[in-house]
Amino acid sequence: MKWNQAHIFTLREAPADAELESHKLLVRGGYIRKLGPGVFTYQNLALRVLRKIERILREEFDRRGCTEVLMPMVQPKELWDESGRWQEYGDLLLKMENRNKQWFCLGPTHEEVVTDLIRKDIKSYRDLPKNIYQIQTKYRDEIRPRYGLMRGREFIMKDAYSFDVDRESALKSYWLMYEAYKVVFKRTGLDFRIVEADAGNIGGSLTHEFQVLAAAGEDKLLVCDNCEFAANIEVAPSVFEDRPTGEPLEKIEEFATPDLKTIADLAKSLKIKERDLVKTLFVKGVDGKPVAVLLRGSDELNLVKLKNTIGSVNPPEFLTDEEVKKLTSAYPGSCGPVGLKVPIYVDQYLKNKVNWIVGANRDGFHLKNVNQDRDFKVTLYADLRMTTKGETCPKCKKGKLKEFRGIEVGHVFYLGTKYSKALNATYLDHGGKSQLIEMGCYGIGVSRTMQAAIEQNHDENGIVWPVEIAPYHIHICLLDPKDKTLSDKTDEYYMELQSLGLEVLVDDREERPGIKFKDADLIGIPLRIVMGAKGFAAGEVEIAIRKTGEKIKVKPDQTVSYIAEWFKTVGVKF
Amino acid sequence: MKWNQAHIFTLREAPADAELESHKLLVRGGYIRKLGPGVFTYQNLALRVLRKIERILREEFDRRGCTEVLMPMVQPKELWDESGRWQEYGDLLLKMENRNKQWFCLGPTHEEVVTDLIRKDIKSYRDLPKNIYQIQTKYRDEIRPRYGLMRGREFIMKDAYSFDVDRESALKSYWLMYEAYKVVFKRTGLDFRIVEADAGNIGGSLTHEFQVLAAAGEDKLLVCDNCEFAANIEVAPSVFEDRPTGEPLEKIEEFATPDLKTIADLAKSLKIKERDLVKTLFVKGVDGKPVAVLLRGSDELNLVKLKNTIGSVNPPEFLTDEEVKKLTSAYPGSCGPVGLKVPIYVDQYLKNKVNWIVGANRDGFHLKNVNQDRDFKVTLYADLRMTTKGETCPKCKKGKLKEFRGIEVGHVFYLGTKYSKALNATYLDHGGKSQLIEMGCYGIGVSRTMQAAIEQNHDENGIVWPVEIAPYHIHICLLDPKDKTLSDKTDEYYMELQSLGLEVLVDDREERPGIKFKDADLIGIPLRIVMGAKGFAAGEVEIAIRKTGEKIKVKPDQTVSYIAEWFKTVGVKF
Repeated sequence: MKWNQAHIFTLREAPADAELESHKLLVRGGYIRKLGPGVFTYQNLALRVLRKIERILREEFDRRGCTEVLMPMVQPKELWDESGRWQEYGDLLLKMENRNKQWFCLGPTHEEVVTDLIRKDIKSYRDLPKNIYQIQTKYRDEIRPRYGLMRGREFIMKDAYSFDVDRESALKSYWLMYEAYKVVFKRTGLDFRIVEADAGNIGGSLTHEFQVLAAAGEDKLLVCDNCEFAANIEVAPSVFEDRPTGEPLEKIEEFATPDLKTIADLAKSLKIKERDLVKTLFVKGVDGKPVAVLLRGSDELNLVKLKNTIGSVNPPEFLTDEEVKKLTSAYPGSCGPVGLKVPIYVDQYLKNKVNWIVGANRDGFHLKNVNQDRDFKVTLYADLRMTTKGETCPKCKKGKLKEFRGIEVGHVFYLGTKYSKALNATYLDHGGKSQLIEMGCYGIGVSRTMQAAIEQNHDENGIVWPVEIAPYHIHICLLDPKDKTLSDKTDEYYMELQSLGLEVLVDDREERPGIKFKDADLIGIPLRIVMGAKGFAAGEVEIAIRKTGEKIKVKPDQTVSYIAEWFKTVGVKF
Repeated sequence: MKWNQAHIFTLREAPADAELESHKLLVRGGYIRKLGPGVFTYQNLALRVLRKIERILREEFDRRGCTEVLMPMVQPKELWDESGRWQEYGDLLLKMENRNKQWFCLGPTHEEVVTDLIRKDIKSYRDLPKNIYQIQTKYRDEIRPRYGLMRGREFIMKDAYSFDVDRESALKSYWLMYEAYKVVFKRTGLDFRIVEADAGNIGGSLTHEFQVLAAAGEDKLLVCDNCEFAANIEVAPSVFEDRPTGEPLEKIEEFATPDLKTIADLAKSLKIKERDLVKTLFVKGVDGKPVAVLLRGSDELNLVKLKNTIGSVNPPEFLTDEEVKKLTSAYPGSCGPVGLKVPIYVDQYLKNKVNWIVGANRDGFHLKNVNQDRDFKVTLYADLRMTTKGETCPKCKKGKLKEFRGIEVGHVFYLGTKYSKALNATYLDHGGKSQLIEMGCYGIGVSRTMQAAIEQNHDENGIVWPVEIAPYHIHICLLDPKDKTLSDKTDEYYMELQSLGLEVLVDDREERPGIKFKDADLIGIPLRIVMGAKGFAAGEVEIAIRKTGEKIKVKPDQTVSYIAEWFKTVGVKF
């Protein structure tokens, strides 16, 4: 493609609302344009990247016997009522009423639609297994869309759904998809980790996230330096040995702690470590009623673990200070478990601790020597704290956990019969008996993967595309477009490289070299050819490698062969 | 693809709501599944057809220097307010309010969005011309969706938009697109006509429709049998020679016509031809106020011509009987122009007619010898009638008009500055002066083209795909899948034909031959190979051509070469 024919408009300034480098570079490089909050137009450069990711997806899914379809974006309320998610899904579901007073939503995901499709077509065990996927535009009504395509409202997703006769077969499908995802992300050229994860409100028990590593990633990951353990911090278990200390229980005692409202203040004043204090937090439980949660003073509550412990669909909300005061007679900082009439969940790390220091439920006072069972009743001990880096691996018990930041680009779920039960999706087994279909669902954020690739691969000058998903392979900066010899030679390279199957962008604008080089760095195509009259007259062509900054001078008649060889070396098939 | 791996489910019965053969066949052949009113899932077979149409589109548009992008489906109200279409577009625009109380619509078309994109990127005449296109899912809130994909709510469209410095350049872009469309539809293998058309509420003055001919098409087309004239009946002009008759005006006279409510009744009773009577109709004008329209008794009012004559955005609505009674003191059937205080539009065919018979505006009475100017005032004479087949061609004035029925699959519009003016999309000209950008827009209904292809190409047994857009080229009916020699040979053909670049579906199900043949006819793949144990043992393989029903027996070692030759002959490139 010649720049003058293309539709590429780079910008010097990033938009004011762009926080992430990748968001800034997408806009500055002319890849995307904002239409409204969380809603973007993909310009041609972006579309080329998306198509490359999509091609990899199609190849890997078709190869594994999956069938591509295309389901509607507008979905009737009735289906979502059947699954219960019309209410349960929450405000991310954009609902609308049409002229005939019928309610619809814009599909944020397609479990309901695909289950409806399958329940109509599948009759018997002979029709199973099936694996259906689509690459489609989805919509989630994010309250505060940000980070560009990372947390936008409209986005492109590859979603796949597997249907099997039983759990064993469904797990086979699950691991087949797990492997497919691994290959897909390997092929995109990205550095990623597969981690244990939370199922969110999709449902299901077995689930993994595919995380592209990037310093600005939203997710924290813990990875063992010894074994293969890797988990989203949301679900990473803490190692716990249940060993009673045998210390005697002391007598409970109230003491004044005026102005000591934080654990840090209290620890400092009492000259003990924060981890030896106990903090009491309050959240809304499944029924909306208060629940108390106790942790070591140094620990952070893990809301996802708590959610799974109390069995709520979404992570619970904290009570406000006023609600806490009303419940306990004290503001947060002076609260404790003694005398409470609500369920009390206690982190396992406190199980064998004796003689706790906790709030007295009286502002400005604490209790010491508080003991479970004797002074209050524990509803449940559970792993509720946030595991942190440097701790021992919960799997091998030998390695230490390292922390990474990641961008979730893929997620696989084993769903079981959650949706087939709700929507009555059945098949007749060998004996002619009706059975529920076992399901799995598998998603890859296509537009998000594009941005994650940039977040992981950029420098101060712009994007540094992995060759596998770059919009073009080669960027020719034609510095003197009016020089006929030079532009003829450029055209020759252009045609030759393309006939080899390589994709070439020629910057044939009447612009200064400095502007062309800046734009080339910004757009981030892996290899650049500099066609300057002076160099060419001296019998040399400059090839620059975007990633390393390396510059190679070759003779004009060796340009094409050098480049072909370079792409072969980095593993591009053409 | 092997049937057992694929996701193909054919049905014996068509859905009750399917009126068109093509709709029935799409469902019965397992191509589409209904999710809700006007909303369908495209199964893999349909997706394969859509992708072929899309590939043709991309090739022809990229070749002509157009740039593909992908714009959002969810569009902010503010943009549609700028163009005035938030109101003007009417109920087809599905509007919705999000959780932040912001209003959006689902894009039925993208003039606003693309103009916004362009006004931000385009700075000077050097950035023009540009032609941007996308292939995207659109939504129109049809009040009564029907005919399957033909008048659905959610549909796939290719929409392109051209941007030029002036009218001359814009018209060049228009005709380039016109040619591109011609090539596209030629390449799909469909029989189509290009006709003059109405611009609807898109705006613009020059416009053509691309119509796939089909007996059940919604549109009527008039085509000259002598010259190249072709028009949608909505806009086909009537030939008119303005020649006064010179007959004397008689005296006006009222006479009783009890129970004569229709033109037919009146003509019969008076023993004159319907065309010698004059009928009076009432519609709502631009401001909602009544307008009278007079035509020969035998003519049908053309609402599109009337719309364009009175300058309204949408075709005007008729007054109800009660509204007519209130306005004229008589019910329809006894109304006429004398004494009316509303604008009176008169079809040009009445211009030189004298001594009319019209309603008396008194139930059960008519007037004779009514004459324009003397007895009432004509607001405007215009071409308001529906032209019909058999009439003289308005262009060459020699040929006769023939009527065809068509399905509109493409539409090209020259827009001028309607949107650039409303949205202030400008560029700086050579002199540094700000100028409005000239626009055109061009649409092809991709999903509709698929169904139109079926409507044009089917028989009593099923679909008969044009080879160019068939989901597969070859359908192998493996009649005895358990016969190892036979299934090995089938696999050999399968691999060989695919390695030639031909697409093959193998029906490897354990089903009776009759079911396989029926399904093959239904699905409509151009060429069928019948692999039966008996025939194969006798040294022959049957090849059947779906379109002609022709059956050819070949020797097993000639099968592949025969088929390759056949596809070359019909012009398929592989």
